[in-house]
Amino acid sequence: MPVPKPNLYPPFNIVRLSHVEYRVTDLAASRAFYVDTLGLQVTHEDDDRICLRAMEERGHHCIVLQRADAADVGVLGFKLYDEPDLDRAAEFFAGRGLPVDWIERPHMGRTLRTRDPWGIPLEFYVKMDRLPPIHQKYALYKGVKPLRIDHFNMFASDVDASVAFYNDLGFRVTEYTEDDESGRLWAAWMHRKGGVHDVAFTNGLGPRLHHTAFWVPNPLNIIDLLDLMSTTGYVANIERGPGRHGISNAFFLYIRDPDGHRIEIYCSDYQTVDPDLEPIKWSLTDPQRQTLWGAPAPRSWFEEGSVFAGVEPVPSALKAQPIVAP
Amino acid sequence: MPVPKPNLYPPFNIVRLSHVEYRVTDLAASRAFYVDTLGLQVTHEDDDRICLRAMEERGHHCIVLQRADAADVGVLGFKLYDEPDLDRAAEFFAGRGLPVDWIERPHMGRTLRTRDPWGIPLEFYVKMDRLPPIHQKYALYKGVKPLRIDHFNMFASDVDASVAFYNDLGFRVTEYTEDDESGRLWAAWMHRKGGVHDVAFTNGLGPRLHHTAFWVPNPLNIIDLLDLMSTTGYVANIERGPGRHGISNAFFLYIRDPDGHRIEIYCSDYQTVDPDLEPIKWSLTDPQRQTLWGAPAPRSWFEEGSVFAGVEPVPSALKAQPIVAP
Amino acid sequence: MPVPKPNLYPPFNIVRLSHVEYRVTDLAASRAFYVDTLGLQVTHEDDDRICLRAMEERGHHCIVLQRADAADVGVLGFKLYDEPDLDRAAEFFAGRGLPVDWIERPHMGRTLRTRDPWGIPLEFYVKMDRLPPIHQKYALYKGVKPLRIDHFNMFASDVDASVAFYNDLGFRVTEYTEDDESGRLWAAWMHRKGGVHDVAFTNGLGPRLHHTAFWVPNPLNIIDLLDLMSTTGYVANIERGPGRHGISNAFFLYIRDPDGHRIEIYCSDYQTVDPDLEPIKWSLTDPQRQTLWGAPAPRSWFEEGSVFAGVEPVPSALKAQPIVAP
Amino acid sequence: MPVPKPNLYPPFNIVRLSHVEYRVTDLAASRAFYVDTLGLQVTHEDDDRICLRAMEERGHHCIVLQRADAADVGVLGFKLYDEPDLDRAAEFFAGRGLPVDWIERPHMGRTLRTRDPWGIPLEFYVKMDRLPPIHQKYALYKGVKPLRIDHFNMFASDVDASVAFYNDLGFRVTEYTEDDESGRLWAAWMHRKGGVHDVAFTNGLGPRLHHTAFWVPNPLNIIDLLDLMSTTGYVANIERGPGRHGISNAFFLYIRDPDGHRIEIYCSDYQTVDPDLEPIKWSLTDPQRQTLWGAPAPRSWFEEGSVFAGVEPVPSALKAQPIVAP
Repeated sequence: MPVPKPNLYPPFNIVRLSHVEYRVTDLAASRAFYVDTLGLQVTHEDDDRICLRAMEERGHHCIVLQRADAADVGVLGFKLYDEPDLDRAAEFFAGRGLPVDWIERPHMGRTLRTRDPWGIPLEFYVKMDRLPPIHQKYALYKGVKPLRIDHFNMFASDVDASVAFYNDLGFRVTEYTEDDESGRLWAAWMHRKGGVHDVAFTNGLGPRLHHTAFWVPNPLNIIDLLDLMSTTGYVANIERGPGRHGISNAFFLYIRDPDGHRIEIYCSDYQTVDPDLEPIKWSLTDPQRQTLWGAPAPRSWFEEGSVFAGVEPVPSALKAQPIVAP
Repeated sequence: MPVPKPNLYPPFNIVRLSHVEYRVTDLAASRAFYVDTLGLQVTHEDDDRICLRAMEERGHHCIVLQRADAADVGVLGFKLYDEPDLDRAAEFFAGRGLPVDWIERPHMGRTLRTRDPWGIPLEFYVKMDRLPPIHQKYALYKGVKPLRIDHFNMFASDVDASVAFYNDLGFRVTEYTEDDESGRLWAAWMHRKGGVHDVAFTNGLGPRLHHTAFWVPNPLNIIDLLDLMSTTGYVANIERGPGRHGISNAFFLYIRDPDGHRIEIYCSDYQTVDPDLEPIKWSLTDPQRQTLWGAPAPRSWFEEGSVFAGVEPVPSALKAQPIVAP
Repeated sequence: MPVPKPNLYPPFNIVRLSHVEYRVTDLAASRAFYVDTLGLQVTHEDDDRICLRAMEERGHHCIVLQRADAADVGVLGFKLYDEPDLDRAAEFFAGRGLPVDWIERPHMGRTLRTRDPWGIPLEFYVKMDRLPPIHQKYALYKGVKPLRIDHFNMFASDVDASVAFYNDLGFRVTEYTEDDESGRLWAAWMHRKGGVHDVAFTNGLGPRLHHTAFWVPNPLNIIDLLDLMSTTGYVANIERGPGRHGISNAFFLYIRDPDGHRIEIYCSDYQTVDPDLEPIKWSLTDPQRQTLWGAPAPRSWFEEGSVFAGVEPVPSALKAQPIVAP
Repeated sequence: MPVPKPNLYPPFNIVRLSHVEYRVTDLAASRAFYVDTLGLQVTHEDDDRICLRAMEERGHHCIVLQRADAADVGVLGFKLYDEPDLDRAAEFFAGRGLPVDWIERPHMGRTLRTRDPWGIPLEFYVKMDRLPPIHQKYALYKGVKPLRIDHFNMFASDVDASVAFYNDLGFRVTEYTEDDESGRLWAAWMHRKGGVHDVAFTNGLGPRLHHTAFWVPNPLNIIDLLDLMSTTGYVANIERGPGRHGISNAFFLYIRDPDGHRIEIYCSDYQTVDPDLEPIKWSLTDPQRQTLWGAPAPRSWFEEGSVFAGVEPVPSALKAQPIVAP
């Protein structure tokens, strides 16, 4: 099944991914990880919930840490362009037989809550509290100097179907991995905001969230984070990297938060705003797809992920397997 | 005069700035500068014309070097989203009483040639020859490792009026400098593609092109270029920098090509895709506006620029002056 | 007068420069500068005195900040190889008719206090309190991430004579600037520890301390410091840079502490351990000597310096002048 | 067995490691690797032999590539301080019953050829042809921008004995790994020139050369090399890294040349000139010893090495094993 043609005129205008709600079992431990170690800035804090933003963001939050009995993912949030887009979004999801709820969310305006066909909880909004710029308050920079949320990567049990659905929403494929034998998609990277991806889907037990990624200025910030984590008790939280992905060309590091939620630290992808940008195809058997420099990813990276609240993941029918570190 | 409200529904969809035609008096000297020193890639070359692209670009060219008797700027090019946008653009410019010509340009599809109200030659297109990706052909990287064209900066004799016109085209102001006394705009930065700017306007004898900017991976590439230029006969072509702009937060270097055309090498601005992004206001009397670290720009930087072919620039009526290096 | 031949068998073995005592008028302000901004680590602190070390140093201090009524330089310290070297040093200085005092210094073993022929206060020691390594305690790194003290640079009223004296002590010239007309030395860089210099002398009203330099990992740390200083009230303390010196090839930044003492932040010189390393000669009229990239230094950089406690500086007879920024 | 006390007054003065002769089976393939990919500069070339230097070196060569039927290591070279040191060296080796030959070597002055007690071929000299500086000829920099040879690392069948011998020569231990159970040395790092090491010894089938290391400016140069190698046919030559060693604190990459000779690319160790520098002890069971960030080295890295011409390596009696990647 080929990559779908880009949908130049989607039913409503998604500007970008916006935020994720992580449900966590030890709020203090999560705060130590995200705030003291990664360097995200606290914008709200109470006994049950911490809101965070990265250094160049002016929206109120990109991560919500919500105290919970079990660790999972509450919702993935996306910002829409203008108020009418919210209504068009409601119409679209209703037309697909998917739930449409208008909910109250602190710090956010009118908010539409729905799920994609596989149950991934999504929320769409236009207005979120806007905060003063801090990107030139250099005394606040610490940790990995996170600049902004970059993308969500999800396990999908049927990547072809997920890509078709998100393509309908206007996400455009920039790169993809094909199983040479079946010709089916094994993974795909899709964007709205002009980078390699806002969302990506990887074959596996799904739906689950594989990771949320943050953009940082340059590879040396990632090296600084590795030095810091490895000498402050977080060495076991380093899962993979540093390295350069063949796909996306990103310099990357994967780390795990205290509940096992995976965070990617990331820089140096490329601009994708051209609507006629040709997707780049990779073979599942090409090891440089994973890591341009040749090192395969560990098994945990292919198998572990965060479940979405209230959704039971199902196995993929596609049995092709990538190369895994022995 | 306040900054205009963003025009969320412009008459046609400009994706991004695309290319500039520099008319140059010594094609070999220009080639040595842009190709051998900066590291741009040749995509076409004949006796009169050289086309160049940067490393992550798949469109045929971002710079055209055209042999000419006198050095000036032939045209600024912009990519539109879809074919109907071209017709809407023609309608828009005709409606403003501006020239509308459909021209033939090598390597480009249907091309609309016009001028803005001050005479700046503009061309719009949807299709340009697409080339295979080279961003992972690391053996080709050299010089400053230019990744993509980033923006045009122009002198304008009436910045308020220029901003109003380009705002009508859908460019959104991200940062601006106001003359505290008159309340008029002294400079403004406006984007389409999600960074701080695709175009900027600065008060002065206009219209003239102040510079074209290229995006590079990180500040060390700029340091490498300084080392290279200063030891290969180009030390006098280094005009300003390195430094960090207060405005845009960019790490910058300004250099001059053999004809005096100014090129900015640039990294580290921020993402601006939110349509409700609040413009940042700077005072003309704030020296950190120019350079966050305090050093004023040299006089040449404020006064010199490239004329557009066939357009006589006129002085600005706004007499406020920035701080200039003694 | 030519550069003297290296003295391969000096009278005693100086390992490296070690520390400087800065007398400061506002200890809290100096602490904010050196500790909170530069990132040096406090190893001793009382009402009158703060001792600091850099991240890879295991000796007790490289800077002593001593409360005083007027800002000047108390002493320059050097580490000797072994105890007999101390006695040989005493013999050498006594033989030259220079003062020899054995003094008590906290945190230091047997300490010889003397002055060079121009009155610069010097102290020599073999043993200083040794502290546990902190170079892998990455949570402590901040500011510019200073790794170690690198060199002292001094104004000298007779550079030829100063170089001759320090050459006798075993310092070896690595680079020098000659006044083309008189053939006299205008400046010279001299090392013991295997880099471009432990001490340097520049023509001018002397003796005065021009600056003390600290070594940092890479140019991005220097850019980080510029961003930090320029947004935390220290923009006026940035004097020159960033840039690359022609001489020494160092990437540099010059800043001033609250009392005006000048600190250089520095990386990337080269290894000079070969005893037959040929000194590199520069002409005073070569602007790339100062800054490889062409920008001249500001007048303050050539004229201002810290006096040594109790020493009246005298003008140089050598009237040749470098190129100064207009 | 404890680490020996530093020998402050060695029998002769070794300045630094100097050069290695690699015997290679395909001179053209080796040239492509060392010159076109790593960026070393050719200083001599004939049908059988290529001499190379790094960018800041002024001695004629740091690597000699010698055409041979089988790949091995011809000799390790060291520079002495002064001519009398050569005679003292001859006396020392003769006194230990080791071979002493005065040989002719192109580009080198009086040269002493000998072997250490395990057969490692060594040569000592004072004078080598000196070449003009190229460290500011930035147009010549390419590949990983190698600045200088940094150290040799060798497998030793009895690390305690090797360390004792090289300690007698004046090499000083900076860091070491002890087998907790037997109390014997498993590895040690020893320097002459003021960094963490000129030579290191690791337990294993020995003597063999584990690797030769080159110093580069910063971690981004290593990332550049990875990008280059992985897209120019050298992906299989990447063996380990990038990472930071716990020991030495170095940012490292290990690659293999076309014959399997291992090269380390390396930056950011620390200054060790203090004669009273306390050696840092690591436990063999501490995985951060190998890689601060936690990733174990691959088996090949622990097992493979280059034999010295004419020397049959023997197994170590010390059976303790490090953690190896599964």
